Amino acid sequence: MCKLQRNERIAALTSLFTSNPGKLFTLSALSEILGAAKSTLSEDIDIIDRTFSKIGKGRVQSIAGAAGGVRYTPGVSRLTKSEIIEYLCIELMKKERVVSGGYLYMLDIIYNPEIVSRIADIFVSRFADSNPDYVITVETKGIPLAFMTAKFLNIPLVIVRHNIEATDGSSVNVNYISGSSKTVQTMVLPTRALKRNSRLLFIDDFMKGGGTAKGIYELAKEFDCEVAGTGVLIKTKQPEKKLVQEYYSLLTLNSVDEQTGLIDIAPSEQDL
Amino acid sequence: MCKLQRNERIAALTSLFTSNPGKLFTLSALSEILGAAKSTLSEDIDIIDRTFSKIGKGRVQSIAGAAGGVRYTPGVSRLTKSEIIEYLCIELMKKERVVSGGYLYMLDIIYNPEIVSRIADIFVSRFADSNPDYVITVETKGIPLAFMTAKFLNIPLVIVRHNIEATDGSSVNVNYISGSSKTVQTMVLPTRALKRNSRLLFIDDFMKGGGTAKGIYELAKEFDCEVAGTGVLIKTKQPEKKLVQEYYSLLTLNSVDEQTGLIDIAPSEQDL
Repeated sequence: MCKLQRNERIAALTSLFTSNPGKLFTLSALSEILGAAKSTLSEDIDIIDRTFSKIGKGRVQSIAGAAGGVRYTPGVSRLTKSEIIEYLCIELMKKERVVSGGYLYMLDIIYNPEIVSRIADIFVSRFADSNPDYVITVETKGIPLAFMTAKFLNIPLVIVRHNIEATDGSSVNVNYISGSSKTVQTMVLPTRALKRNSRLLFIDDFMKGGGTAKGIYELAKEFDCEVAGTGVLIKTKQPEKKLVQEYYSLLTLNSVDEQTGLIDIAPSEQDL
Repeated sequence: MCKLQRNERIAALTSLFTSNPGKLFTLSALSEILGAAKSTLSEDIDIIDRTFSKIGKGRVQSIAGAAGGVRYTPGVSRLTKSEIIEYLCIELMKKERVVSGGYLYMLDIIYNPEIVSRIADIFVSRFADSNPDYVITVETKGIPLAFMTAKFLNIPLVIVRHNIEATDGSSVNVNYISGSSKTVQTMVLPTRALKRNSRLLFIDDFMKGGGTAKGIYELAKEFDCEVAGTGVLIKTKQPEKKLVQEYYSLLTLNSVDEQTGLIDIAPSEQDL
């Protein structure tokens, strides 16, 4: 590559970091990509980290030692986080979202790339320190949220399905009881989808009884894996006792009144 | 926000653009966010665009007129594109991917955020000019690819499902014949998922007979929408005649030999 000036190096480095969150770049690799001395690059990186701190975009940090390098971790400032949560509450309480049966239509939110990215930012701030090896979710609605969280953490996504598919080889099946409907459901995961002794971060859009989350614990056991964290966008207030104890939710759905169209959603307690 | 210096503004702008591909920012909005004069910002943006051209990261372009502003469109250089395709061929031809029945295991590829992002870059370069309003896919395996393409184009994703779910309100159902297995399948999409007269970009991981793609055409008709493009990661060589004529595939799966473990995958013709 032809030589870049400082301004250009900063643009190139910033785009490299933000496109590859969680990825560790050695200074030697960066030096080769950009054709600049390591000392020069260290100064560039300081400027980017300082800027990111100012604008609440996360950190670009140097990790010392033989396995060291530079890594970008997306972040979200306290202010931004409360803005996102406020936006979601207002948007999700709109009357026209109530569908027959007293359910809440939210596909336009949980499939919207911009909104999903902001929610994933919050999951990442919350769970980056628990060092997960995989993000895991159950098809279908939570996939965009789980995928974006995996992208920001730079780890693979694993999708658990409800039916066996011949194209994916042998699989492990777990039966679990849905926490709300009390029906028996099946979870299927190909045997080669997870390495043994891995740490899993379970991400989903919605939690009612917590049956799915409990199923993930069962499945993890079958693969000698551990659930390192559970994050959902929205949990219902009732039943208060979920089938899993430890989980993080952004929002709590208190009630939906099909007659009046009144929806009551609030930030979950742990964020108050 | 406190005043930023040029280097810092470039870092802030680059991160803003790469985190919001496809989004139109007015110079006034940027001027407000960054506390700098529009003329200064125009110079910053020129530097970023020049750098992106040099490193093959896409373009940051000014759109003139009343509805104008600045927009980042991710891109992939010819060289990078052939590198990605070569990487995928080598990776997907590994013997251990053959599973019982002569299928190809590729979940680790199509759920890997870094690889998915690079493939989505290619779809975006190919389809950005067709001006889609939505990316559409059918659950489950194509969702990460479709979601990332939607993110880079800054348009919503729509996921078609196989079963009706009560929580999403009324829906439109379409029956279609699977192109390969000749069985009748159902596609379900909530009525409020798509605005009438929209342009849809169909993205999927795999195409064999083309039945799913044809089903999407049927479904589009029910919503008075139009299919603006079809992109798949990998198509099979046989049957040569698919149920849809116009589609783009990165790779062609020529054959899988279950006995010997030999897999033959090549870049699709249109890229040669």
